[in-house]
Amino acid sequence: MRNILIIGAGKSSSYLIQYLLNKSTAEQLQIIIGDINNDQAQKLIGNHQNASVIALDVFNKTQRTEAIQNADIVISMLPAHLHIEVAKDCITFKKNMVTASYVSDDMQALNQEAIDNGLIFMNEIGVDPGIDHMSAMKVIDSIRDKGGKMILFESFTGGLVAPESDDNLWHYKFTWNPRNVVLAGQGGAAKFLQEGKFKYIPYHRLFRRTEFLEIENYGKFEVYANRDSLKYQSVYGLDNIKTLYRGTMRRVGFSKAWNMFVMLGMTDDSYVIEDSENMSYRDFVNAFLPYSPNDSVELKFRHSLKIDQDDIIWDKLEELNIFSADKKVELKQATPAQILQKILMDSWTLDPTDKDMIVMYHKFGYELNGKKHQIDSSLVVIGEDQTYTAMSKTVGLPVAIATLAILNGTINTPGVQIPITKEVYTPILDELKTFDIEFNEKEVPYLGYNPLNN
Amino acid sequence: MRNILIIGAGKSSSYLIQYLLNKSTAEQLQIIIGDINNDQAQKLIGNHQNASVIALDVFNKTQRTEAIQNADIVISMLPAHLHIEVAKDCITFKKNMVTASYVSDDMQALNQEAIDNGLIFMNEIGVDPGIDHMSAMKVIDSIRDKGGKMILFESFTGGLVAPESDDNLWHYKFTWNPRNVVLAGQGGAAKFLQEGKFKYIPYHRLFRRTEFLEIENYGKFEVYANRDSLKYQSVYGLDNIKTLYRGTMRRVGFSKAWNMFVMLGMTDDSYVIEDSENMSYRDFVNAFLPYSPNDSVELKFRHSLKIDQDDIIWDKLEELNIFSADKKVELKQATPAQILQKILMDSWTLDPTDKDMIVMYHKFGYELNGKKHQIDSSLVVIGEDQTYTAMSKTVGLPVAIATLAILNGTINTPGVQIPITKEVYTPILDELKTFDIEFNEKEVPYLGYNPLNN
Repeated sequence: MRNILIIGAGKSSSYLIQYLLNKSTAEQLQIIIGDINNDQAQKLIGNHQNASVIALDVFNKTQRTEAIQNADIVISMLPAHLHIEVAKDCITFKKNMVTASYVSDDMQALNQEAIDNGLIFMNEIGVDPGIDHMSAMKVIDSIRDKGGKMILFESFTGGLVAPESDDNLWHYKFTWNPRNVVLAGQGGAAKFLQEGKFKYIPYHRLFRRTEFLEIENYGKFEVYANRDSLKYQSVYGLDNIKTLYRGTMRRVGFSKAWNMFVMLGMTDDSYVIEDSENMSYRDFVNAFLPYSPNDSVELKFRHSLKIDQDDIIWDKLEELNIFSADKKVELKQATPAQILQKILMDSWTLDPTDKDMIVMYHKFGYELNGKKHQIDSSLVVIGEDQTYTAMSKTVGLPVAIATLAILNGTINTPGVQIPITKEVYTPILDELKTFDIEFNEKEVPYLGYNPLNN
Repeated sequence: MRNILIIGAGKSSSYLIQYLLNKSTAEQLQIIIGDINNDQAQKLIGNHQNASVIALDVFNKTQRTEAIQNADIVISMLPAHLHIEVAKDCITFKKNMVTASYVSDDMQALNQEAIDNGLIFMNEIGVDPGIDHMSAMKVIDSIRDKGGKMILFESFTGGLVAPESDDNLWHYKFTWNPRNVVLAGQGGAAKFLQEGKFKYIPYHRLFRRTEFLEIENYGKFEVYANRDSLKYQSVYGLDNIKTLYRGTMRRVGFSKAWNMFVMLGMTDDSYVIEDSENMSYRDFVNAFLPYSPNDSVELKFRHSLKIDQDDIIWDKLEELNIFSADKKVELKQATPAQILQKILMDSWTLDPTDKDMIVMYHKFGYELNGKKHQIDSSLVVIGEDQTYTAMSKTVGLPVAIATLAILNGTINTPGVQIPITKEVYTPILDELKTFDIEFNEKEVPYLGYNPLNN
């Protein structure tokens, strides 16, 4: 038997564990799940003969090193900042390792040691990052292989609520960490390339510079820019590209409404609101509006953001009970962002029967034989329930498939890496299709941003 | 003779030196000016018998300690972060010290040592901070002395161009550090109190939440909120006050126009613009606007910020040549804020014959015998020329007067302090009147923000 150690059995491990258990007899796998809390892990493995749960506190060195020594390969599903201790042990005990997280500087620093020891440290092999890398590089490589020259690459991902569970005006529910959603886009201007020009959008304008997309059978979406669209420019080999834009997908109308919170300052996480604990939701809103002895919070809000009396955006606010004088914040020493998160969680938490949805959309523009072409590639994955979510599926399955491929030696180039080579992405994308994770690729007329160039 | 050491002879030392020289014979003063650059200091003292200039590099410990040892009192006119080395030497050699800067944490930490040595470290005795403290505390103390209870305090200061030199559409020129003007308001939400309610304004809304003021013979002004209006709440003894608001004064219309730069992201100092050196001003503006192959930068700008074709705000932009394709940025690796500063300095630098102006406005609301009252107090100081500026006058004279008062023992309470006690502010404000630095105080009907409470 070959021992696979999974450290951390959080939200995104259901499909990962299911996949490995299904393969465990044929592939002779023993799955060991180490977590500080055994309950979730135990529920996921049931009484499967090829799986066991051990108590593992990643800060407990004895527990951690013992578990890693006994493993043939290690999957870390811990929060990103906790991978590094596991990674160092994997160097010490010569174990391969897989994570779905961004490569941190600390992780990157282990590259030479990993290579010297012939070890594979595969990272960013979830959905975003992960499936985005693989599906993009597959098309980019195929364009290059036929002699094409990339001139445009745009890539968008969204974690949303499935259409059948979409029952609010925002067409949004929290399917992942709500805090990250509230803080999205903060920390600096968004930067990207359009037709050879660098463009910059400050945070307070980010949600007013959206673009629209359409996915067959799923309707229209909008996207706002990610902080750094240029992050993978060199990694993808796109150094001379004219347009490079990455973003986050939402249903149409979300961003314009979200912008109200940004404008008032409600997404700020840098300071604490006085006496937040005893505020009503209405008091919270009022803290960002001028004082008036007579005028209502509602009218001040409308005037402040110039919202017409018949604007649908207003219904979105009312749906959140944000003007309620009865609902209390009840959070001590809270920042605006923390209070807003609480208000949104009242309305945007998934019901037990709700399903989530992952959407992804790439645009590839290229020149071939003097002509411009475009391929659009899109993916939709719908969750089954609240354990077997689309998020868990798209994160967990690539991790699981990569782990087995490394164990079986079909992925065998050592080093700290991300899944951008044919060796890695071809078999994984092929196998993902058998789980209905399949991109819909189509040739479309080249659009770009400059019709004169077409 | 008594030796007064002035370290640093920058822009704001002309009146300081002039005052001390005028008193030097009667008061038996010898003025020693220590600077790394002798030229400016030499020009200011001419060939006055009671003054000399020495080379003093504040980072050179031998030079610094020797100069301080020979002094009877030390005035530091250095940039604020450089005071602390001087202050430590003043403890060592038991010298009193005067600065016009905010009390840093490092400076405050010397309080007990100063008291133990019977030393006076007087800070924040320029204009803002300085004259604002003194003129406010004088009125607040007088209200309390007659049994009144403070319910409202608002305080505003502005460094502007004098009306006779006001020849641009912004009614603004740089009379002080341009970088501070470009970055003003950044670093967090503005916080203040209105009628007992805490209010918060995010940076990107700061310049759209202005209030108006009028000063007799000088017309209308507007104010935007300072970052922390509550900074001196306890120090001034205003813990139970209902309204506390501090701000910066500009001529009407400045803030609405400035907001265009904020909205586009041009005041951001946190990242570098690609290839800034070779950009034209027009390229710089375009970097914050969506790409278009046909539409002009002008139309994209108007559309993006919803500027009507006949809005006067547009003329303010054109006056700055901000759409010029010929003018080059010529700054390497520059942030948006640095580039904007350069563009503004082309237009907003004082001409040799221009004069500056300092304006200050306080509102004091109080209850006395069951009735509400209000006192408004305002100050206007116009500079004489570009050496003897209003800024230099209002910073330098309080420093000079305080220095002599400490030397003569009329200010004699030891410790690290700011000028908020009667002992300090009464003689200084009285003497400032002889230099035409005099507040115009008047009783006005109480306004506040709640007419129902009046």
